[in-house]
Amino acid sequence: MPRKIIIDTDPGQDDAVAILLALASPQELEVLSIVAVAGNVGLERNAGNALKVVELSGRTDVPVHAGCARPMRRTLVTAEHVHGQTGLDGPDLPAPKIALQPQHGVDFIVETLMAAEPGAITLCTLGPLTNIAMALVKEPRIAPRIAEIVMMGGAYFEVGNITPTAEFNIYVDPEAADIVLRCGAPITMLPLDVTHQVLTTRERLAAIAAIGNRSGEAVAQMLAFSERFDLAKYGSDGAPLHDPTVIAWLLRPELFKGRQCNVAIETASELTVGMTVADYWHVTDRPRNVNFLRSADADGFYALLTERLARLP
Amino acid sequence: MPRKIIIDTDPGQDDAVAILLALASPQELEVLSIVAVAGNVGLERNAGNALKVVELSGRTDVPVHAGCARPMRRTLVTAEHVHGQTGLDGPDLPAPKIALQPQHGVDFIVETLMAAEPGAITLCTLGPLTNIAMALVKEPRIAPRIAEIVMMGGAYFEVGNITPTAEFNIYVDPEAADIVLRCGAPITMLPLDVTHQVLTTRERLAAIAAIGNRSGEAVAQMLAFSERFDLAKYGSDGAPLHDPTVIAWLLRPELFKGRQCNVAIETASELTVGMTVADYWHVTDRPRNVNFLRSADADGFYALLTERLARLP
Amino acid sequence: MPRKIIIDTDPGQDDAVAILLALASPQELEVLSIVAVAGNVGLERNAGNALKVVELSGRTDVPVHAGCARPMRRTLVTAEHVHGQTGLDGPDLPAPKIALQPQHGVDFIVETLMAAEPGAITLCTLGPLTNIAMALVKEPRIAPRIAEIVMMGGAYFEVGNITPTAEFNIYVDPEAADIVLRCGAPITMLPLDVTHQVLTTRERLAAIAAIGNRSGEAVAQMLAFSERFDLAKYGSDGAPLHDPTVIAWLLRPELFKGRQCNVAIETASELTVGMTVADYWHVTDRPRNVNFLRSADADGFYALLTERLARLP
Amino acid sequence: MPRKIIIDTDPGQDDAVAILLALASPQELEVLSIVAVAGNVGLERNAGNALKVVELSGRTDVPVHAGCARPMRRTLVTAEHVHGQTGLDGPDLPAPKIALQPQHGVDFIVETLMAAEPGAITLCTLGPLTNIAMALVKEPRIAPRIAEIVMMGGAYFEVGNITPTAEFNIYVDPEAADIVLRCGAPITMLPLDVTHQVLTTRERLAAIAAIGNRSGEAVAQMLAFSERFDLAKYGSDGAPLHDPTVIAWLLRPELFKGRQCNVAIETASELTVGMTVADYWHVTDRPRNVNFLRSADADGFYALLTERLARLP
Repeated sequence: MPRKIIIDTDPGQDDAVAILLALASPQELEVLSIVAVAGNVGLERNAGNALKVVELSGRTDVPVHAGCARPMRRTLVTAEHVHGQTGLDGPDLPAPKIALQPQHGVDFIVETLMAAEPGAITLCTLGPLTNIAMALVKEPRIAPRIAEIVMMGGAYFEVGNITPTAEFNIYVDPEAADIVLRCGAPITMLPLDVTHQVLTTRERLAAIAAIGNRSGEAVAQMLAFSERFDLAKYGSDGAPLHDPTVIAWLLRPELFKGRQCNVAIETASELTVGMTVADYWHVTDRPRNVNFLRSADADGFYALLTERLARLP
Repeated sequence: MPRKIIIDTDPGQDDAVAILLALASPQELEVLSIVAVAGNVGLERNAGNALKVVELSGRTDVPVHAGCARPMRRTLVTAEHVHGQTGLDGPDLPAPKIALQPQHGVDFIVETLMAAEPGAITLCTLGPLTNIAMALVKEPRIAPRIAEIVMMGGAYFEVGNITPTAEFNIYVDPEAADIVLRCGAPITMLPLDVTHQVLTTRERLAAIAAIGNRSGEAVAQMLAFSERFDLAKYGSDGAPLHDPTVIAWLLRPELFKGRQCNVAIETASELTVGMTVADYWHVTDRPRNVNFLRSADADGFYALLTERLARLP
Repeated sequence: MPRKIIIDTDPGQDDAVAILLALASPQELEVLSIVAVAGNVGLERNAGNALKVVELSGRTDVPVHAGCARPMRRTLVTAEHVHGQTGLDGPDLPAPKIALQPQHGVDFIVETLMAAEPGAITLCTLGPLTNIAMALVKEPRIAPRIAEIVMMGGAYFEVGNITPTAEFNIYVDPEAADIVLRCGAPITMLPLDVTHQVLTTRERLAAIAAIGNRSGEAVAQMLAFSERFDLAKYGSDGAPLHDPTVIAWLLRPELFKGRQCNVAIETASELTVGMTVADYWHVTDRPRNVNFLRSADADGFYALLTERLARLP
Repeated sequence: MPRKIIIDTDPGQDDAVAILLALASPQELEVLSIVAVAGNVGLERNAGNALKVVELSGRTDVPVHAGCARPMRRTLVTAEHVHGQTGLDGPDLPAPKIALQPQHGVDFIVETLMAAEPGAITLCTLGPLTNIAMALVKEPRIAPRIAEIVMMGGAYFEVGNITPTAEFNIYVDPEAADIVLRCGAPITMLPLDVTHQVLTTRERLAAIAAIGNRSGEAVAQMLAFSERFDLAKYGSDGAPLHDPTVIAWLLRPELFKGRQCNVAIETASELTVGMTVADYWHVTDRPRNVNFLRSADADGFYALLTERLARLP
């Protein structure tokens, strides 16, 4: 029986690839909904992008909800400099024919968790954690019902990408991240430490483009666009690929290594706000609330991604 | 036409008196709902107390909703040392016969504001600001539709009551207070500066007890209970009375004096967390977001309260 | 036998009056040195002003040292808007003939304390606490040798004067204040709560001017100048008078009331930095490190001041 | 003509090796003084250890001063768990016959810099930055006279060693580090990023022991002792070697790589206090105040160290 997941996301090219990877894996994963949140670009665009990706995948049975349009306390910071004005620049995807669900994404999360058996549903988060934190505050009884939260976010050894200490998803809504990390549910974190190891090299993008289907073509175009910012910044051969690692970990956890440790979010200081302070060396007695992944088998990851994308239209 | 208000509250003896004062004033105020929030005691008790107060008033037509059971980021701090184990110790009120509304209080606030004309509805907050902040994050479009937020909370010249710098309502959920104070809606704040001027002296409590109806008797019993903590702490003749000032300001604003100034919430430092930093002397260029009241006509306030309580059963 | 004191100061009109009050009281107070610190204006001017005041008093036997020219961590903030460009605007005092001592003020404080019997010397601070904190860090063994630190600084019920929460002396060097308040020596604090009760009314200034000596004339001119800022700000009859309360408390402590409580300095948050958080109501278990004075007998204070100034040339 | 340096240090085994490396290089470096500061252990032991190391080197002409016994604001944290109770466990060095200079280390630094030509003297710091910061506050005019500050301290990609985000030297006195980093003098920083690349492997320690002189023997014993903590923590082949990198950089800068960037010190948040936030990727517009070194030629470093130690007795 496939694992039931809700994907909370701000697509985003790498979010789109993650969604496609999940939708290409119905034997392992049942996607209950894709819930949009403000992040890479504003909520409206992110939600529209989610619809486009669902249509691209041919899985128009999967509902899409819109969640929160702003972070809890902070002014929304977006990343058009990375993702382009649409948030999904690169391929020329048609305007979606399917529509958003009328229910608010936060309410969908709360109701779905409360209606299911405890431990039945995994939350996969690819963007700021606003929706999840809002759900936890609105209905605290969902916390012990969550099977696991698997999130792309944070950084420790690999430091930050939006500031010298903060990764974008956490930085956008650090209070939400703090709420989620202290909620008591099992958490697996895919930080920059991992995502900076799975680079979009020429060969890997070429392999995806060579699949020959529309999904592969679109993914190759997306990643060719989004990698430009990081290539210029880091001067490396290929850019990090972030969000698909969440789905890859669900599909093949043996591709990743890490350890259980405390992760706390900096919210008090403007200098370091949004930092994910991982006690990786266990030098404090803080509770070990996160399965913090630190490394990935990059070739195995791209092999998985390419193989699954080939199953899509 | 009466002003439409939603009362967001954590009853609490002084909350109860505020609710009674509002329900006793139907010509001026139409109470759309009483929405409970965790604060003085836990949510379940606060919501039950709201039902009891509605029944005491005879106004069982007024719906009661339950909102959030926890602050946004912080662990709930309660004040049984002031309000007693039930949160409403003092009178012996019967178990309520009416029931809570099934809708979540945050959703009620959002839906009601979105359905009404902009500027039609005033929010009166007597407890932590969790519900209001959650509504603002869940649906940011409500902000310009709020006529005004009138809140009991904060302190400046009168310093704090739960810590040396923080007033209880703000301290319980400072992030929520921060969100609300920066939402752009008109805000009037009734801080300890005001509420410590309207003391529950012997004569004033005796006058309320002498009304002769069940509401007056219950109020006198409530305040005789809740004042004990402050009498011991401050050694004054009578304790401060907090939440009814919100309703009194709606009924007779000429009883109060203050000025428009910036109020910001301390959230970064553990030493001063929850402080309401009022730029009362305009020494900064921060925006003047709050009508900060500083003084009250105490005799006029108690005359109003006593006169209105006499209209209840 | 007179009490031995070191006056650490940033004159400043009110500092000058405090120095004159001390020098006019040789039976009670032996002034070992006047040590200048950067504060109201820069160090050079403050030190020069100290020399002028010593000459005005006719007590050219009292040495003047220059201490630190900058706060420990912060950029120096000065208050020419209150004190004028010279820091001592008002009277036309002649350029000083006496010279500064060659020794650094911090070294003078350390050496004097180490050479004297423990408990023999009281530090009177009228400005930022940089010199005292530097002495404590440079030579921690002085702490138990200090008889008492009597400081003008801070505010609690009376809030701040340079920001909504901070008094000027503490705000200029909050880290120094933090070091001093936690050094273990007995501390008496004369905050704005006190100094805003001893107003420079017309009658009081007239009485000082009527003394008929050059010191009285100069003091009347100083205070007529320095009060202008506060008169405009507060609209009161007379401005607060700050630093002389330190000397008045040494001479006649019965003029003041307060209590022993914890005072902690806010250094972490930009919003509230420099606040003196007084646990006046003992709601925390922090150690009671300060004799925090809250009120003064204003008429008694001005009677003392006028009587002593009359003893000077 | 050799470069004039003052070594500010809290020996510490690795400090001792750094001192020996400097004293073994008189053609390149003239050591004006070794100034002790509280850090790895208390000031008295650190100063005594400095004397022992000077005697071990045979260079008893080099004066040793004692500076500050405590950090500026914080309670002293020491590291006996790494360095042993004496701070210099390992070799059995005789009690020193030479004595400390009577002058305070801070005064020595100030006077020496003020007496020399601007740009003549380099400060090498191997411990907490208390003495340097104290000198800068006591006499701000030294800042433009400093040729360079070369410090072992901080961490960025390599994260912290005493907390999850802080390196020990900075953590012990973060306010001092903040003062020093913003003083305007040229600064080169040798962070954990560098020192974790120059590991005390078996072969390298064996080569030092094989020198055959008493200095080489003592160094081998020191490092065999001090590496135990890190070997257990990191499970690596050899422990990081910290302080000698400062002297090695002076002798052979081509062994190191890095870039000019901003480094700021976290002082506001307890979670991340003491962190050295390096804007290595230039994502902010903060001033580039530090030459931040990131990598080292480990073999070249150990070849240099071994060759120089061989020149000592």
